[in-house]
Amino acid sequence: MDMYEIIRRKRDGAELTDEEIRAFIRGYTDGRIPDYQAAAFCMAVFFRDMTDRETAVLTEAMADSGDRLDLSGFGRMTADKHSTGGVGDKTSLIVIPAAASLGCVTAKMSGRGLGHTGGTVDKLESIPGYRTSLSPEAFLDQVRRVGIAVIGQTGNLTPADKKLYALRDVTATVDSIPLIASSIMSKKLAAGAANIVLDVKAGSGSFMKTLDRAALLADKMVRIGTAAGRNVTAVITDMDVPLGTHIGNALEVREAVAVLRDGLRNDLYEVSVCLTAHLAGMTLGIPFGEAERRVKEAIASGLAYRKMLEWIGAQGGDISCIEDLSKLPKGRYAARVKSPADGYILKMDAETVGRTSLHLGAGRATKEDVIDPGAGIVLRRKTGDRVREGETLCTLYTDRKSALGPAKELFLSALTFGAEKPEPRPLVCRVISTAR
Amino acid sequence: MDMYEIIRRKRDGAELTDEEIRAFIRGYTDGRIPDYQAAAFCMAVFFRDMTDRETAVLTEAMADSGDRLDLSGFGRMTADKHSTGGVGDKTSLIVIPAAASLGCVTAKMSGRGLGHTGGTVDKLESIPGYRTSLSPEAFLDQVRRVGIAVIGQTGNLTPADKKLYALRDVTATVDSIPLIASSIMSKKLAAGAANIVLDVKAGSGSFMKTLDRAALLADKMVRIGTAAGRNVTAVITDMDVPLGTHIGNALEVREAVAVLRDGLRNDLYEVSVCLTAHLAGMTLGIPFGEAERRVKEAIASGLAYRKMLEWIGAQGGDISCIEDLSKLPKGRYAARVKSPADGYILKMDAETVGRTSLHLGAGRATKEDVIDPGAGIVLRRKTGDRVREGETLCTLYTDRKSALGPAKELFLSALTFGAEKPEPRPLVCRVISTAR
Repeated sequence: MDMYEIIRRKRDGAELTDEEIRAFIRGYTDGRIPDYQAAAFCMAVFFRDMTDRETAVLTEAMADSGDRLDLSGFGRMTADKHSTGGVGDKTSLIVIPAAASLGCVTAKMSGRGLGHTGGTVDKLESIPGYRTSLSPEAFLDQVRRVGIAVIGQTGNLTPADKKLYALRDVTATVDSIPLIASSIMSKKLAAGAANIVLDVKAGSGSFMKTLDRAALLADKMVRIGTAAGRNVTAVITDMDVPLGTHIGNALEVREAVAVLRDGLRNDLYEVSVCLTAHLAGMTLGIPFGEAERRVKEAIASGLAYRKMLEWIGAQGGDISCIEDLSKLPKGRYAARVKSPADGYILKMDAETVGRTSLHLGAGRATKEDVIDPGAGIVLRRKTGDRVREGETLCTLYTDRKSALGPAKELFLSALTFGAEKPEPRPLVCRVISTAR
Repeated sequence: MDMYEIIRRKRDGAELTDEEIRAFIRGYTDGRIPDYQAAAFCMAVFFRDMTDRETAVLTEAMADSGDRLDLSGFGRMTADKHSTGGVGDKTSLIVIPAAASLGCVTAKMSGRGLGHTGGTVDKLESIPGYRTSLSPEAFLDQVRRVGIAVIGQTGNLTPADKKLYALRDVTATVDSIPLIASSIMSKKLAAGAANIVLDVKAGSGSFMKTLDRAALLADKMVRIGTAAGRNVTAVITDMDVPLGTHIGNALEVREAVAVLRDGLRNDLYEVSVCLTAHLAGMTLGIPFGEAERRVKEAIASGLAYRKMLEWIGAQGGDISCIEDLSKLPKGRYAARVKSPADGYILKMDAETVGRTSLHLGAGRATKEDVIDPGAGIVLRRKTGDRVREGETLCTLYTDRKSALGPAKELFLSALTFGAEKPEPRPLVCRVISTAR
């Protein structure tokens, strides 16, 4: 198989054969195909796109490039969740125990990644004692006993994706729907779950800035998963404003507990219920309405909260920090940001708020950065709220005193004020699901 | 300057700044920018093209990446010629002495390259004794004495182009007008001549299969050269059939001598006169008609032939082999190809004829191949000729006896016969010139 011909055919708009795509992934993984040919190929894909068949074959080839997690012992009860990432997005901390409390099996590997705040694993690490790394035996044993284990990515899962993603990141070829979809879904396929819910974010704080782009990505991922024999539902949710009120690793754990235990019923609750209901519906084989009712009940009754404690405890976390949230880390310095104007908040740019939390220490700008688990932002007002001059808009937390001044200014630059109350945006914009 | 941003901006259709383009070439030449970023960049250029300004800046940056030949001592009398390459294209062997006999100064570095037959330097090497490598001093001294020196590429000329071309060759990014134009013209600018004639071939035996593509390339190259202060004329000539009748290195020397000395007046003569007249017209500052008259006179009177002998002799070649062409190498085995049909030759696919000569040993498939100077084809009939079954169409020459059988078949596959005489195609299709 000649890589030159594969590049040329894609460049000229041809549909590649299964064997060509597999040969590319095999050759690139084992180093026979050099980075420069892979880079030219990715740029050709950026311009020419890939058909559903091509994308499905690419995804399977990447999933096959390394180890796969074998969850076949759990039958079709395994459930997984992925979010394309947003600001204040801590839904996994709610969805996982809520789904498990209804009988779903969540054996999950979660990324850290770069960004405004950490990944799920970073958030869990803000709980003293939580172990994000378990041996394969301990991992599966905990899943068997508790129904949940969540660890960092381990072993040789999807090495092709790791290599290709690192290359795309420096060659301006990240922003291609088939390449994004295959990257995400190859990890989901290798992670082995039979049922997958995808939270695809749309808006200023997410990678997909428009609903149309988000829908294209969601649709592509659902088709890939379905072709691979999985049940997949993608929920497109709004990320034009941060989700919930707490941004930053330990702060986000607090808000998740407030939903599961303390009756908080905000946008975070709504999105989490929606995602859990879709996941549980697929896994248990029940209609969405019935699943939604059960999820709400599990949260209201404390069943989901008790499952959270069981999970965190089993994985070494100090559950007294959950029972008494004041024991979780919190930045040494705090500063309130006051409103400079009277009126309605017309816009709170999620990306800018995210960058504010990054400057406070809640995220990583480079792989080497160390996260400050107690840093972040607690919002008091969001888009659509009426505010008066001098009123507190949010509180910033950090261990870096000198970051407070610039962070305040950056936060304020995210806001636009006006005299009229803006139209509310829908939280859940669209649902795309495997045909059953 | 951030290469990621340069790739991304080109990918998104932006026009790059001069500084961005220069930073790319500088960084790529000295190895700070890796091949994979350059490959992604070239593929983005393939899809997004480059403006005239971008292409001109890219070309100058490549010309500046290494040494430049300093021909300033010859004022504005220096003349250079380039052909995009075709089958049976030996016009340089005529244009160079004819132009020099009229006072043009041709200090020329010529490529070898891959292809159906060798480059000009390979053709000259079929003359026993001809030295294709001279010291810079000997080179300039010969130019001063004779008005001509032609050697192989030497020194550190356009290292950026060498590196970039090798990369494009394996990443399917050769076929991009701005990249082809800048590659050719960077070498011409570095080679220092004030006047440049470009023979841009169009048709089945050339890189540009259509007249429209050839015209785009020609126009781009003329604009680049003009922006760099050179006089440039591009002549688009037909390459749907081989040029002249002789294909192969020593065979092509024979045909050139037949034009210069023996009164051969065929398509090769016509194209050579046209190219020389444009080159001499620019260099001497006289109108095309006047230049054409002088060129024809120089050939008819033997002035151009005597200049050829002077040049070849000065550069070590055995001129007795020119005076008695039978002393030039010729393949040990010869075979006539007979016509399988009665009728007119409707088509003689130049590319297929070229591949036939390659199989006979006249060209290089890889850089390591050694050329057989006596191998090649002498055509007896061409497109438009009426033939009878059994009549000789051509003679094949080679040292590889076993190549004769397959070469015969390949040659015949290039031909289409029919009952009606086909419309003749114009030899010179278009002329694009620097605005004076």
